Amino acid sequence: MQNRNTAATGSDRGGAPLPGDGLEAVLVAELGDALVTRSADIDPRYFTAYNEPAGARPHALVRPRSIDDVSRTLALCTRFGQPVVPQGGLTGLARGAVALGGEVVLSMERFAGIEALDAAAGTMTVRAGTPLQTVQEAAEAAGFTFGVDLGARGSCQIGGMLATNAGGTRAIRYGMMREQVLGLEAVLADGTVVSSMNRMLKNNAGYDLKQLFIGSEGTLGVVTRAVLRLHPLLAAPATALCRVRDYDAVVALWNRVRMLPEVVSFEAMWPAFYDYVARHTPGVSAPFVGDDGFAVLIECATSAPGGDAHQALETGLAAGFDAGLVEDAVLATSERQARDLWTLREGLAIDALPHLVNFDVSLPTGELGAFAERCEAALRARWPDVMCLFFGHVGDGNVHIGVSLAGMTDADLDALDHCVYAVVREMGGSVSAEHGIGVLKRAYLAHTRSDAEIGLMRRLKAALDPLGILNPGKVL
Amino acid sequence: MQNRNTAATGSDRGGAPLPGDGLEAVLVAELGDALVTRSADIDPRYFTAYNEPAGARPHALVRPRSIDDVSRTLALCTRFGQPVVPQGGLTGLARGAVALGGEVVLSMERFAGIEALDAAAGTMTVRAGTPLQTVQEAAEAAGFTFGVDLGARGSCQIGGMLATNAGGTRAIRYGMMREQVLGLEAVLADGTVVSSMNRMLKNNAGYDLKQLFIGSEGTLGVVTRAVLRLHPLLAAPATALCRVRDYDAVVALWNRVRMLPEVVSFEAMWPAFYDYVARHTPGVSAPFVGDDGFAVLIECATSAPGGDAHQALETGLAAGFDAGLVEDAVLATSERQARDLWTLREGLAIDALPHLVNFDVSLPTGELGAFAERCEAALRARWPDVMCLFFGHVGDGNVHIGVSLAGMTDADLDALDHCVYAVVREMGGSVSAEHGIGVLKRAYLAHTRSDAEIGLMRRLKAALDPLGILNPGKVL
Repeated sequence: MQNRNTAATGSDRGGAPLPGDGLEAVLVAELGDALVTRSADIDPRYFTAYNEPAGARPHALVRPRSIDDVSRTLALCTRFGQPVVPQGGLTGLARGAVALGGEVVLSMERFAGIEALDAAAGTMTVRAGTPLQTVQEAAEAAGFTFGVDLGARGSCQIGGMLATNAGGTRAIRYGMMREQVLGLEAVLADGTVVSSMNRMLKNNAGYDLKQLFIGSEGTLGVVTRAVLRLHPLLAAPATALCRVRDYDAVVALWNRVRMLPEVVSFEAMWPAFYDYVARHTPGVSAPFVGDDGFAVLIECATSAPGGDAHQALETGLAAGFDAGLVEDAVLATSERQARDLWTLREGLAIDALPHLVNFDVSLPTGELGAFAERCEAALRARWPDVMCLFFGHVGDGNVHIGVSLAGMTDADLDALDHCVYAVVREMGGSVSAEHGIGVLKRAYLAHTRSDAEIGLMRRLKAALDPLGILNPGKVL
Repeated sequence: MQNRNTAATGSDRGGAPLPGDGLEAVLVAELGDALVTRSADIDPRYFTAYNEPAGARPHALVRPRSIDDVSRTLALCTRFGQPVVPQGGLTGLARGAVALGGEVVLSMERFAGIEALDAAAGTMTVRAGTPLQTVQEAAEAAGFTFGVDLGARGSCQIGGMLATNAGGTRAIRYGMMREQVLGLEAVLADGTVVSSMNRMLKNNAGYDLKQLFIGSEGTLGVVTRAVLRLHPLLAAPATALCRVRDYDAVVALWNRVRMLPEVVSFEAMWPAFYDYVARHTPGVSAPFVGDDGFAVLIECATSAPGGDAHQALETGLAAGFDAGLVEDAVLATSERQARDLWTLREGLAIDALPHLVNFDVSLPTGELGAFAERCEAALRARWPDVMCLFFGHVGDGNVHIGVSLAGMTDADLDALDHCVYAVVREMGGSVSAEHGIGVLKRAYLAHTRSDAEIGLMRRLKAALDPLGILNPGKVL
């Protein structure tokens, strides 16, 4: 992926002066050698975002083993006005977990593992550093499904997923990370541990504090643990890829398919995206090659004893055929075939395109077709040879855009952002559906949020982190 | 219902001195006669909580017709440090919407109506004063279901339901009010209008501000409008009442029934509750009278074309019979019969019991049986003749308790609260599942929330409402 300008924003930090070169020594003295890695010894993976060149080397790396370690680290950083970047699996796409210059990185990777799984209640208590895949596998072993799935499941961590309110491919069925959380524990900038480890589905006793920390990208507190809700185990899914003429037909098909309680995913690939991945995904024999239509991936699954996801999917497809919406369809007859269809949709093949830039935006499902047309027209007006590949979770109004332009300059890169986000603003959409704001979209927050909203965000930030030490230069 | 001690807490207000008798004149001069009702002219319904004697007469009643009216009213009250009680349909059960003495009441009843219904997106834009039933009927007319239903549907208002994060009988399927909201608009204490009228299912652009106002009972801002999400229309439901031996069997049955994607409600009545309502509900011929078991009401419904909720319900019941969990069952064969089963569960008959006190608490579903036993034992140890009636939405861990005691004194009343909430605390439950804290549970907030949590709530309150004019004496 193309690198972007990073403004190293020392002035954003606010707060007391840094202790300077003495910082490492202070951290080691207070926290111990076992927790602290000195700047020169930090492995580049702690300052390198996914698919990007290495970023700024942090002042120090702290890897806590306990909640108390997190609390002591933050209390110490508050004492010195020292900026801190909380860090999960570094799979985010908005550069929210990397240092910009001058920060201590607080990696949660050692505070990992499942503390409890309550099968009677259908809940799991996990530590922030636990990878998603570990949670998914433990849930399945106990007869449950975890509600969020995404491509980075092997490396992304629950804490980072909570901090960014991760979405993924099942949001139409189960919602995003926010909807999977019953209880949450976070540590404030001053080291205060706020433990709201609620285990109940319903709890209206006072403010729902966990909401503050979900989706605020580590700027209001550091997530340490969570009580996650689990869903009844889904049996093997049924997966199909459909050929659909145009986006209006995609929406009409969605409005039929969403009536099925079994639907888990409804993902669309615009013609240019599908044509590219169908031709360039090694080892996958794609259906409908050479057609000029949309490809829609539908997955159904059910937890009902004796339930039949294939039957449900066929019902949905039949309704689509009868209404003239589906022109052709392929049902996966093996797990391998289903995997291949998903591989096309995940579209890793497009990562090889020169100077690829990815966008993640949302609008109501019915407006995404017009958005894609306007967006591509605006880009092509300035860069006639631009490649615009639209795809995504259209059932929940979320589209990703891969934009590739031979010989792209830094000026082009900024202009691309301006161009895409201007269309999002005009149409009243969001500049971030599921990836967060981080650094990359910070300049465009006001495209989606009003002055009054941003003012209230700043009020919250000032109330919870008055020195501004938590993830400065991110989101706000 | 038994009245409770109300501490008129003028000292909780904080902020500047009141303008005293001049207040009415100032309000009328600034807002106009059409919006302001003087204290002496206020109809008692504006200061009387559901099922309670009239409370404190407010200083004045303001009934805004626009967002600007709300903003001007709050800005004015901030100028004079004048406490304000936001008010919806006054159907709450924690006394969160009534004045304690010295407040202006801000009733949202005139700012009502549906502004938009987007059938393509499945969303509805509504004003705070809109009754739930209006929303439900508009949703159904457009081919959708609204996710929350509760007994007070004809009088409760969307704004109040949002402020209290109302729950109801469908939370196991659709969640509480929080889960129905895509966008929200609220007015802060100083009159700032924070409009976050997001229409997208996924929007991770900055902090999710709406969460602050949902469930905070009007203490952080006044909800004016919301964008609600709608669900596919459910066809006519299938309803059954089952006779189940004991609570362990109720839980085992729930763990089977929850696998059905069609389940909408799973409600249990403990033996004493069921025995009472079966004998005392006029016009309803109850099944299983004289048995000494639990009664479980299960409702299934589906939006799937050709889907069969009766088939699903029968599958669930058959699994329950086969496992020896269900001893007898009655399937409603008409809408009237289904309504009768719900009438039993709603239990209005117990309102006639002398000195009835209602509780609303939650624990994980599997622990509610032990809770009921411990709670009843604790009450009976002190009051041997007490009547304890347990019932509720056990699929989501929420139980209500009707406690009746002949000749109950005010001292008994306080001791009852102590007794019940002590058991909740010991078992790690919540003192409010869905009714909120209001005034009635304020003294028990710390039974469920830690000092650090309450400290953070106070920090938020101070950040958003520094003078403390919004609903003082409630929640915190």
